[in-house]
Amino acid sequence: MSPVSRSKADSTLNAIREAVGPEGVIDDPEVRAPLLVDHRALYHGDAALVVRPANTAEAARVVALCADAGIAIVPQGGNTGYCGGATPDASGTQVLLNLSRMNAVRSVDPVNYSMELEAGVVLATAQQAAADASLLFPLSLGSEGSCQVGGNLASNAGGTAVLRYGNVRDMVMGLEVVLPDGRVWNGLRQLRKDNAGYDLKQLFVGSEGTLGIITAAVLKLFPRPAASATAFVAVPTPQAACELLARARALSGDAVTSFEYLPALALDLVVQNIDDTRMPLDARAAHYALIELSTASDAEAVGELVQRLLASAMEAGEVEDGVVAQSGQQADALWRLRENVPAAQRAVGNSLKHDISVPVSRIAGFLEESSDAVRAIVPDVRLCTYGHIGDGNLHFNLLPPEGESLERFIASHGEALSDAVYDLVQRYQGSVCAEHGVGQLKRDLLATHADPVALELMRSVKKAIDPQGIMNPGKVL
Amino acid sequence: MSPVSRSKADSTLNAIREAVGPEGVIDDPEVRAPLLVDHRALYHGDAALVVRPANTAEAARVVALCADAGIAIVPQGGNTGYCGGATPDASGTQVLLNLSRMNAVRSVDPVNYSMELEAGVVLATAQQAAADASLLFPLSLGSEGSCQVGGNLASNAGGTAVLRYGNVRDMVMGLEVVLPDGRVWNGLRQLRKDNAGYDLKQLFVGSEGTLGIITAAVLKLFPRPAASATAFVAVPTPQAACELLARARALSGDAVTSFEYLPALALDLVVQNIDDTRMPLDARAAHYALIELSTASDAEAVGELVQRLLASAMEAGEVEDGVVAQSGQQADALWRLRENVPAAQRAVGNSLKHDISVPVSRIAGFLEESSDAVRAIVPDVRLCTYGHIGDGNLHFNLLPPEGESLERFIASHGEALSDAVYDLVQRYQGSVCAEHGVGQLKRDLLATHADPVALELMRSVKKAIDPQGIMNPGKVL
Repeated sequence: MSPVSRSKADSTLNAIREAVGPEGVIDDPEVRAPLLVDHRALYHGDAALVVRPANTAEAARVVALCADAGIAIVPQGGNTGYCGGATPDASGTQVLLNLSRMNAVRSVDPVNYSMELEAGVVLATAQQAAADASLLFPLSLGSEGSCQVGGNLASNAGGTAVLRYGNVRDMVMGLEVVLPDGRVWNGLRQLRKDNAGYDLKQLFVGSEGTLGIITAAVLKLFPRPAASATAFVAVPTPQAACELLARARALSGDAVTSFEYLPALALDLVVQNIDDTRMPLDARAAHYALIELSTASDAEAVGELVQRLLASAMEAGEVEDGVVAQSGQQADALWRLRENVPAAQRAVGNSLKHDISVPVSRIAGFLEESSDAVRAIVPDVRLCTYGHIGDGNLHFNLLPPEGESLERFIASHGEALSDAVYDLVQRYQGSVCAEHGVGQLKRDLLATHADPVALELMRSVKKAIDPQGIMNPGKVL
Repeated sequence: MSPVSRSKADSTLNAIREAVGPEGVIDDPEVRAPLLVDHRALYHGDAALVVRPANTAEAARVVALCADAGIAIVPQGGNTGYCGGATPDASGTQVLLNLSRMNAVRSVDPVNYSMELEAGVVLATAQQAAADASLLFPLSLGSEGSCQVGGNLASNAGGTAVLRYGNVRDMVMGLEVVLPDGRVWNGLRQLRKDNAGYDLKQLFVGSEGTLGIITAAVLKLFPRPAASATAFVAVPTPQAACELLARARALSGDAVTSFEYLPALALDLVVQNIDDTRMPLDARAAHYALIELSTASDAEAVGELVQRLLASAMEAGEVEDGVVAQSGQQADALWRLRENVPAAQRAVGNSLKHDISVPVSRIAGFLEESSDAVRAIVPDVRLCTYGHIGDGNLHFNLLPPEGESLERFIASHGEALSDAVYDLVQRYQGSVCAEHGVGQLKRDLLATHADPVALELMRSVKKAIDPQGIMNPGKVL
């Protein structure tokens, strides 16, 4: 990037103000401030201008003006990311382009099972738009009340229904993208088959705003399951949990919509620290799984299915004890145990986190070896490794020994522990950026852990599409 | 590409011979000949050398040598493509790299629901490897007995189960690719969640060998459905067929694995020209649909499901008459009607073909308007437009008026008819390259019909990854 002269920058910023009008610029420091800090408050940035374009044409105009002046642009959705991908740097020279004004659900097509919406639509609103047409948009994650669809796409969000419906990458039919030079690629196709050249949309999904700004999308919709059953089971080992998952998929004909693993520590933390939660089983176990099956048949049939599953899994020694929710209320209570693990960790001073994945068949081996590895460094470290094991995705979180502060723990052992975890992930052919992406937080980690040829390819693609390097610089690569 | 001097080319070809050994080169003219012509015999090419490397290292060595000399490479799988994508040009200067010797199924992992295999594995062999582990690899298409997985990936194959399982793009977990300069990208991940930078694998899937050579892949597997039900119904209009499809998806909880549309002409051609076929319904209708539901429940339950579907669809006026297969044999007989449409067309002199897609909700409108458009050009043209309407994908085939030869028909009206069809596809925001890709056949069509910004992006990516332009030149772009 060539240095930007002060006067050129000033005249560009004025031209941007003119292009988006007073509604399109945020100058109020109190409104600006939260947009300049990431969700976990790891990064505090600044911006030459915070713009909120009203439509694609305005967004494209902003980008074209920035491109002409060599000014960097940081796209931002709901600002709920975990890796600082939507936070500008501290220089105060970048333009923050927030998409929240572009929040129209343009159309829902129940015969094509698709909907078209703008990037700034909040995920929960998108889910509701599908539900209003008696359909399902299956992407579901903790921040769904505030995260935006554009950000979900830019970071290839996963969530709790990946096992059945895939990541959001699998739900995209078409995209509209403002490119780094201000051109607009209108790829808003509503097609299930389209082999007309390279699949450009998959390049932008998961690129975290470094190749362009996703401004609108066509997303796949699905039939709503008629009934679901939720079970909470004690399993003897993580390996048993993985085998139970394979059994559940086979026996139910792929009706497993969620399969979450919880170690005893995670459950203990929740029950001890979160109101309105209690142990669902009488006997204590070392490992638990939360299973949800969803089918088109009625509640009775899916109830029988889950009973059949538990009976056969008990006979095979994969399940020691289990309970099936008898009402929606009971199912919610079981889900509360899983959903409150992050809050329970915060209540006891939080944890050193690693968002990793390995092949499902290697989870048990990985958990054993990684537990040994971190205990070799800090014998009393507390492991709160839980997550979507149906996707091979673990939130590998480490709590300091009882009585030690997280700050001290991280300062003394953080680097050694994380190195041990990530090295092992690599040996297990896993990913050190499984679900939450790269952003700024894991840029160096990616550079050291990714395959060098893959990195070279990514850099070639970045350079081809954003030769000036002005689109969300310092993120991912 | 800089011109290649004769002596440099000769020494490179010798070095390639040495690299792959006598087993790795095909010199026998009778073995070479069929590899130099495409499946539909539209293109007759030649090659400086036909190589069949034994492994990835040999393939990479061949590519590196070619890159050094500026010699173009044409990758080839089972040579079953419809668009000439695997046929070299007629110059005799290109190297044809056939992958059929790289045909090992490396591993099947039933807990991770995945398998790793080399590009030259025949699709039916891959299906069998999954079945041997009591799992399903759902990709299924007419040429599965001879097409290869590498070619399926390079062309993003679709087939008959897209509605439930997606295109092969949706089944890929990892790839190994030899890049245009001979480097190998080992992206053989077995992960369901991996957001470590750009999704490179999706760039190579569907790029028809123009960005690199796919040499191995990790593919997703699925539980095998326990039971399925097949129904053949008469529908009053194409619109009714589309509404029936939406109803079937909703009512069955997405258990629709196939939904094929047939006009009366297609059925007539099959029954008149193919042995062992007969009309499955007593009454004649103008439109038919073949529906397959697959579930984890038993045959009785899925039988009840399909009966419930037909009853509610008849009440809604979407179905006029229908029959449900009472045995596997009867189901096969119904499928034979669909599968023999191409053969039946060949029996009467073949057709002018268009492989197109539109949004499912616009199929009826498209069929009406396109029928009028082609009849305005040739009043007696016979429309055999059938296909996977569950995916919005129609094989829009035109037969000459009774008594006229295909050659004469195409010579007189081919261009005008195809222009009319493709222009209408574009107006309906469809794709002129839906399932069969681009290859050489549709390169000019893509250039005229694709969004100019999309084309520029594709060319940028091509140039970034294959700056010499030696990887399958003249295809796609």
